[in-house]
Amino acid sequence: MENMGSQTNISFHTKQVETPTNITIKGILGLLMDSIDVGRVQNLLTDNVDGGEKKREVISLGIGDPTAHSCFHTTAAAKEAVVESLLLDKFNGYAPTTGLPTTRKAIASYLSRDLPYDLSPEDVYVTAGCTQAIETTVSILAKPNCNILLPRPGFPTYALCAAFRNVEVRYYDLLPENNWQVDLKAIEDLADQNTIAIVLINPGNPCGNVFSYQHLEKIAETAKRVKTLIIADEVYGHLAFGENPFISMGLFSSVTPILTLGSLSKRWLIPGWRLGWLVINDPNCIFKSPKIVERIKKYCDIGGGPATFIQAAVPKIIESTKEDFFRNTLKMLKKSSDICYEKIQDIPCINCPYKSQGSMVVMVKLNLALLHDISDDIDFCFKLAKEESVILLPGTAVGLKNWLRITFAVEPSFLEEGLRRLKSFCLRHSNPILMN
Amino acid sequence: MENMGSQTNISFHTKQVETPTNITIKGILGLLMDSIDVGRVQNLLTDNVDGGEKKREVISLGIGDPTAHSCFHTTAAAKEAVVESLLLDKFNGYAPTTGLPTTRKAIASYLSRDLPYDLSPEDVYVTAGCTQAIETTVSILAKPNCNILLPRPGFPTYALCAAFRNVEVRYYDLLPENNWQVDLKAIEDLADQNTIAIVLINPGNPCGNVFSYQHLEKIAETAKRVKTLIIADEVYGHLAFGENPFISMGLFSSVTPILTLGSLSKRWLIPGWRLGWLVINDPNCIFKSPKIVERIKKYCDIGGGPATFIQAAVPKIIESTKEDFFRNTLKMLKKSSDICYEKIQDIPCINCPYKSQGSMVVMVKLNLALLHDISDDIDFCFKLAKEESVILLPGTAVGLKNWLRITFAVEPSFLEEGLRRLKSFCLRHSNPILMN
Repeated sequence: MENMGSQTNISFHTKQVETPTNITIKGILGLLMDSIDVGRVQNLLTDNVDGGEKKREVISLGIGDPTAHSCFHTTAAAKEAVVESLLLDKFNGYAPTTGLPTTRKAIASYLSRDLPYDLSPEDVYVTAGCTQAIETTVSILAKPNCNILLPRPGFPTYALCAAFRNVEVRYYDLLPENNWQVDLKAIEDLADQNTIAIVLINPGNPCGNVFSYQHLEKIAETAKRVKTLIIADEVYGHLAFGENPFISMGLFSSVTPILTLGSLSKRWLIPGWRLGWLVINDPNCIFKSPKIVERIKKYCDIGGGPATFIQAAVPKIIESTKEDFFRNTLKMLKKSSDICYEKIQDIPCINCPYKSQGSMVVMVKLNLALLHDISDDIDFCFKLAKEESVILLPGTAVGLKNWLRITFAVEPSFLEEGLRRLKSFCLRHSNPILMN
Repeated sequence: MENMGSQTNISFHTKQVETPTNITIKGILGLLMDSIDVGRVQNLLTDNVDGGEKKREVISLGIGDPTAHSCFHTTAAAKEAVVESLLLDKFNGYAPTTGLPTTRKAIASYLSRDLPYDLSPEDVYVTAGCTQAIETTVSILAKPNCNILLPRPGFPTYALCAAFRNVEVRYYDLLPENNWQVDLKAIEDLADQNTIAIVLINPGNPCGNVFSYQHLEKIAETAKRVKTLIIADEVYGHLAFGENPFISMGLFSSVTPILTLGSLSKRWLIPGWRLGWLVINDPNCIFKSPKIVERIKKYCDIGGGPATFIQAAVPKIIESTKEDFFRNTLKMLKKSSDICYEKIQDIPCINCPYKSQGSMVVMVKLNLALLHDISDDIDFCFKLAKEESVILLPGTAVGLKNWLRITFAVEPSFLEEGLRRLKSFCLRHSNPILMN
């Protein structure tokens, strides 16, 4: 091929464009994986954890995707529904970009079970997973000089979307000493007339908290006071296994408009199927208007959307999934959460202020004063990956330095082995004087 | 539920945001469908076309989705590959947001068949259909005060993406009198230092043209002269059934960088599966840089992406599809294109300057002077829908007023009936004096 060296002065100008510098969960987990010496890793669980020099299986407690573990496989009914829909040869073509009418209807009816009124299928927009629902929501709300209130710690995709759409991010705190409840005063202080929304994730990622009815009501009233709407991320909807039941934020949509985001991903254990939704919960039509509906529809026209045959299977997936399947998942999650909490009590330098009641994750705090050669959470995670082949997410990735996020939705034996190695790592790096 | 009437003065500010006013193909086809008197329509073909009052089947020649017609069903091999991948229970989880490594590799290898060098899997980004590839490309290139050159007529999703990303659109003409070739001089006149790309669609939508090697080379040289890159939309790649073979624009990537967009949608007749790609063809690394790769990766993190199990099936879909399947599709398309061209010769007031050689569509020109009560292409299409239950796309939707786009990728008998009704409509609306 001819060498076009003379071309190197072509100015593509893309260098002028700034790329958001946000840390992404997948980005940092990828770096952690790369830092594991592959030569030392094999697909075997070994009991030898002394030197950290032996070959051993990588234990990832980093990402909220439990599908690698057979105890978290989806129900056969869901797969059958998809196969049936595919083989019908009726759903290989384009769906409307807002979603198949039958899919919108099934999702509306599914979500209405948690509400005192019936959602209209027209209020449901089918998206490629919750990620596309987040991106669509942030993009349709964005306007010059606007800002959005995000929880800290939180899910970093919101900040990345905001950065790409030139939306200023303002963080309000979730309070660990108060069951990770929202700092309501912070919301009142941060919001102004350019605030486009408050993002709320319940059940919580990364904290595993589940908000009470009373607290959700207060959040809605606060949002009303500051005259903004709530983006209710319920991607972990119904995955609550502790004291507080899961309450849909849509319940408070008569207080302030709620944009509910969700997906089949977590409850059905199929994050890779990319079937999510964006739903307008706004019975008083405060936010909803022909103009905003037009804007969402137009935005759907430039998105990819989920596969038509998967969309077509949704009514049957929802209808034919047995309660047993959901119950079993909750049982497994509770068991894993219990193991995680108990084992962490035994680990020096790590403290868990709140036992996870929902989602698949929990936040724990590092006590760096007790560690003699660890500078911060990122340093901790890289050394842990290198020495123990265990992957945890540094809290920095979710906005909380010197914390760690642990995903416990894995096989119990796998989780126990991971926590055993974590303990061994902590003991090895503990300040010997302080430990005595 | 409590009526929160006092809330109506909540200022959600979304009214300040302007929604692009672009016409979309699906938008206008939806309106045309709505304009058909449903009471008069049933799923039966009837021979009675005299009065236009009888109930009859709707014939849509409006959208490039042939999957409703059994002669354009996908191959069993593709469906089997997806079922197998789904039932393996290994692909229900998240894929990397840039795509599964095996999928990127399979697409790289598939596209390299048309190139003098091998694409790296790293140059391939897997997207939810070509739509997400378009949106990603426009978004990663966008910067303040930039512009993009689009073909007229063209595919309106580009202009809609540009509008959402504040990219100025400048149209260059495709010349009907010159086999819909690009007006190269227009490109030189329109491009400036803020031009981020030239979009080229080959095989052509909406014109059905297929560019020759020589013409593609000239386009690449023109792009080099104006110092910009080419977005080569090859979603209809390989669907060429006339004189000119399909030539991948990537062949000229040593002249100027080419971003190739494509999908399985059209060639495999599965537009609803949402499996597309964005590929950097840039062997001299003029455009490609760590910074731009980082930007694309970050952008992929906020997109939905295609289902993991469909991605996992791609290597097998590509490998196991027989040449017979492709040959048969081309034969069907050629036959339909021939029927379409011949029948149109017989229709007064409509002229076809170029017989389609590729894709699934053709552009025809209205001679309004010969029609006594039709004001323009949109008026024509609405009256045609109402009177004949035939849907055609007004040229205005693709940038060419008083033209029509006809999709001929339908069952031949269906196409013939549609064209018969079109003729009857034209005869009925013809100026009687001029017709004699």
